[in-house]
Amino acid sequence: MQVLIGQLNPVVGDIRGNKERLMTLWQQCEEQGADLLVLPELYLTGYPPRDLLSREWFITVVEEAIDDLLAASRSYETAVLLGAPQSYNHEKGRGLYNSALLIYRGQILFTQHKSLLPIYDVFDEARYFAPATEVKTVEFKGQVLGISICEDAWNSRELWPRGLCYDFDPIGALARQGATVIINISASPYHLEKEKIRYEIIRGHARKHGIPFLYVNQVGANDELVFDGRSMLFDGQGQLVTMLPGFREQVQKVSLMTPGSPDLVLPDRLESVYEALCLGIRDYVSKCGFSSVILGLSGGIDSALVSALAAAALGADKVYGITMPSPYSSRGSVEDSRNLARNLGLHFMVHSIEDIYYSYLNSLKGDFREEELDISLENIQARIRGNILMAYSNKYGHLVLTTGNKSEMAVGYSTLYGDMSGGLSVLSDVPKTMVYQLAEFINRQEEIIPRAILQKPPSAELKPDQKDQDTLPPYPVLDQILYYYVELDMAPEDIIHRGFDPDMVWWIIRAVDRSEYKRRQAPPGLKITGKAFGMGRRMPIAARYNY
Amino acid sequence: MQVLIGQLNPVVGDIRGNKERLMTLWQQCEEQGADLLVLPELYLTGYPPRDLLSREWFITVVEEAIDDLLAASRSYETAVLLGAPQSYNHEKGRGLYNSALLIYRGQILFTQHKSLLPIYDVFDEARYFAPATEVKTVEFKGQVLGISICEDAWNSRELWPRGLCYDFDPIGALARQGATVIINISASPYHLEKEKIRYEIIRGHARKHGIPFLYVNQVGANDELVFDGRSMLFDGQGQLVTMLPGFREQVQKVSLMTPGSPDLVLPDRLESVYEALCLGIRDYVSKCGFSSVILGLSGGIDSALVSALAAAALGADKVYGITMPSPYSSRGSVEDSRNLARNLGLHFMVHSIEDIYYSYLNSLKGDFREEELDISLENIQARIRGNILMAYSNKYGHLVLTTGNKSEMAVGYSTLYGDMSGGLSVLSDVPKTMVYQLAEFINRQEEIIPRAILQKPPSAELKPDQKDQDTLPPYPVLDQILYYYVELDMAPEDIIHRGFDPDMVWWIIRAVDRSEYKRRQAPPGLKITGKAFGMGRRMPIAARYNY
Repeated sequence: MQVLIGQLNPVVGDIRGNKERLMTLWQQCEEQGADLLVLPELYLTGYPPRDLLSREWFITVVEEAIDDLLAASRSYETAVLLGAPQSYNHEKGRGLYNSALLIYRGQILFTQHKSLLPIYDVFDEARYFAPATEVKTVEFKGQVLGISICEDAWNSRELWPRGLCYDFDPIGALARQGATVIINISASPYHLEKEKIRYEIIRGHARKHGIPFLYVNQVGANDELVFDGRSMLFDGQGQLVTMLPGFREQVQKVSLMTPGSPDLVLPDRLESVYEALCLGIRDYVSKCGFSSVILGLSGGIDSALVSALAAAALGADKVYGITMPSPYSSRGSVEDSRNLARNLGLHFMVHSIEDIYYSYLNSLKGDFREEELDISLENIQARIRGNILMAYSNKYGHLVLTTGNKSEMAVGYSTLYGDMSGGLSVLSDVPKTMVYQLAEFINRQEEIIPRAILQKPPSAELKPDQKDQDTLPPYPVLDQILYYYVELDMAPEDIIHRGFDPDMVWWIIRAVDRSEYKRRQAPPGLKITGKAFGMGRRMPIAARYNY
Repeated sequence: MQVLIGQLNPVVGDIRGNKERLMTLWQQCEEQGADLLVLPELYLTGYPPRDLLSREWFITVVEEAIDDLLAASRSYETAVLLGAPQSYNHEKGRGLYNSALLIYRGQILFTQHKSLLPIYDVFDEARYFAPATEVKTVEFKGQVLGISICEDAWNSRELWPRGLCYDFDPIGALARQGATVIINISASPYHLEKEKIRYEIIRGHARKHGIPFLYVNQVGANDELVFDGRSMLFDGQGQLVTMLPGFREQVQKVSLMTPGSPDLVLPDRLESVYEALCLGIRDYVSKCGFSSVILGLSGGIDSALVSALAAAALGADKVYGITMPSPYSSRGSVEDSRNLARNLGLHFMVHSIEDIYYSYLNSLKGDFREEELDISLENIQARIRGNILMAYSNKYGHLVLTTGNKSEMAVGYSTLYGDMSGGLSVLSDVPKTMVYQLAEFINRQEEIIPRAILQKPPSAELKPDQKDQDTLPPYPVLDQILYYYVELDMAPEDIIHRGFDPDMVWWIIRAVDRSEYKRRQAPPGLKITGKAFGMGRRMPIAARYNY
């Protein structure tokens, strides 16, 4: 059987646009003589459609699109397997299934609903869907297809311990029913190491059941989530036949019964993070209807990295860097930013905030004693910069990118309505130590990010001679403790038992918990670790933490 | 059986503190000779504990608290029925139940897990909990208790159509097993009209099964949610025996077999909203560790209403009002604010933003053409005010309250990082038309909010002679359309068919959908309608809406 893998990037909510993309591709399939075109989970709505699914009329638009596809299918010999929400008589449950529809020659030949509905981390599927009540195979062109949807394949406790523990294995059930091939349509977001876990899980199914496994994953970024694609086909020995590239759309024809060859080497983890962040920027900007971005260049490494990522994602001519020196900015901050902008080819502006800063100072000094002014004035510099960026955003229609990293966001070392102002927080899930690694990755062939930026001690430059390390623990230690506390949810005592200074551990933990209110108002940030701040980590604010 | 209803206000996460409260109360119960003290759902953790439940060590703290309660129970004849998460061997599912524990004389006499786990609107319970596999009754001091938890009683399709449709009725099952009384421990948040629905649902169970029904609800506000309490006991004819007051802690002794009397009249809906907002302010401020608030007084009705609510919630001496005139402020805006502050007894300050505004103007005018400056400068005024408020917040440790109403938040008629800056958005679920009703409610006996504020046409005063109605549809129409679109999820065509101007409907709908990004960065807002912006309405940002 000749299959076309449609590793596409649908736009969330744009049912008609996604359908049109499919129609165009279908025509090409037919010309290539493919038997089946396979598209990702919930392809018609894009994933995740979130509470759009609660609107009955949204489901009506889905049903109209499916009617159009059914009408079109009469002209084609190629069948389509795609994901879409399906409504059912709402006598009990939620009234919707997350379904895979096999459309062929004017009819829905077969429907399989999703059995396992993820409801941890960023997933809310049980909010919208009821689980399938049964799984079945379907005969099609000489094969017995066992069709499954994303999480249906993720019931391996060994490989995926952080998921739920399900008591049903849809893949095993399909294999026992005599499937000659398993197909899984997915919308499985990327995070660090997940590509390896996913590869092992899918290969494990093919090996265990001795049948080929075709895995078709969504690509593209939607708000916080980046989908890496990497659709793949394993043969019945669990050897890889093909893997589509990560982080970009691709359509590839493959014969289901092709024998595979020994293991492939997955790309370097930093390269994956780099590509995830570029795709995250590109899609957020374009899907929000923007074409260009603006960001403040402080002369530090975070804004340098975001500039480089944005230039790679959008083209340097779509990136506007603005350096906004205050009386406390080092001389280097403007020069280093200028060099960075020149290296990358960004638009570059200098806009001093000195006069505005002094007008605040004059306006406030009557009411504030000098020592009270300190922290307020540090924040005010950050907020003036935020205001200037937003003014340029209003003027030119650039989306503002924020540059704070995960380590800062974790402990609240950032100014709400200041450097946190913007539409997308590019690095909010990238720890500071990885910021350096990514900068080195970008510089691996030539010096794109100036050495001076990489080598200077991190500083907010909001008061004379300020250094991050005056306030924060050294970043390598901070990041390790944050990994244990935020990503692994480890108890403070257990972290201390790993040999860290108790005072430092407690300082960090209290800072994390005290900063929930700031993160609640942060822009969406691109998830690249197992636990990002945002929709996957839902903490109370008005609370008292017991340790 | 003599029961003490403990309508308490636990602090989320403060397991030890909540336990201590319970210990104190227990002692009093014992002295009063009560058989049973009943506390709300998840009392030990407060509701909702959210992702704190994902931390294993958080559950350990719960278990330690329960051990302490068991030890204490040896000295008491009064039993305690309370809600707490219970872990179980994590072979499948999520490893936690949402449980009611009956503690008596050194042991957990009985445990009932929650059967129906809400996962719509603001609720995420299936994210954390597995459902009960069975319900059972328990004999205690001559009664057969049927114990249920919150949603277990909410499976009435007629009365609560927006919930899920469950195929199990825990209350019916308990009645069939011979329960002589049903007890429901709840953490049921308030919204408009919900007190009536809840009353009907609980009374309906008592009537249908012909047995008394004791309902014990949490009181207090936690982030976005306000819990109104209003615990109640119905007799076996469905007549009300007692209802505890709404929106405040109360402990009340009641005999389970007391006959009831005819219907009570529930309080006026505006009075409930008023009390909900006051409690929401009071608890957010205190549970976040603040004791005072600051807000900008524009001379308009929104900030006037928030001032009055804050003064009622915290005491006027804890409320700081600051009016920040710009060159476009009307003369009245300062005078009206001063009168308001005097009427309420607030601290009052005037801080002109004129000099800072002109410093921005000078700084930007080189780069901006005059017409480009317009919208930027409107926003800059709002942002300067936000900055000043945050500076005072830093100085004095006041929490900043924002004053935007639901109608503005819906269509994005607000400035991000400007008037949206603050810790709590008091009116973000109060439509503008209800803002007026609440102001009239506050003024029902004397003029607290000056007439001049009530009578002036709404204006942002960000440019000369600006009026809201130059940009927005008339508020009564806007609010009606928003009700259909946001609260009822009605299709645009169906709204137009109700007789509204199609252009106006489309303008509003597009404005709502386009403003998701602003609301994502808004502070938490107090939920008082059936569908509030925030955790109960989860919309994509990078999306294209098909209508």
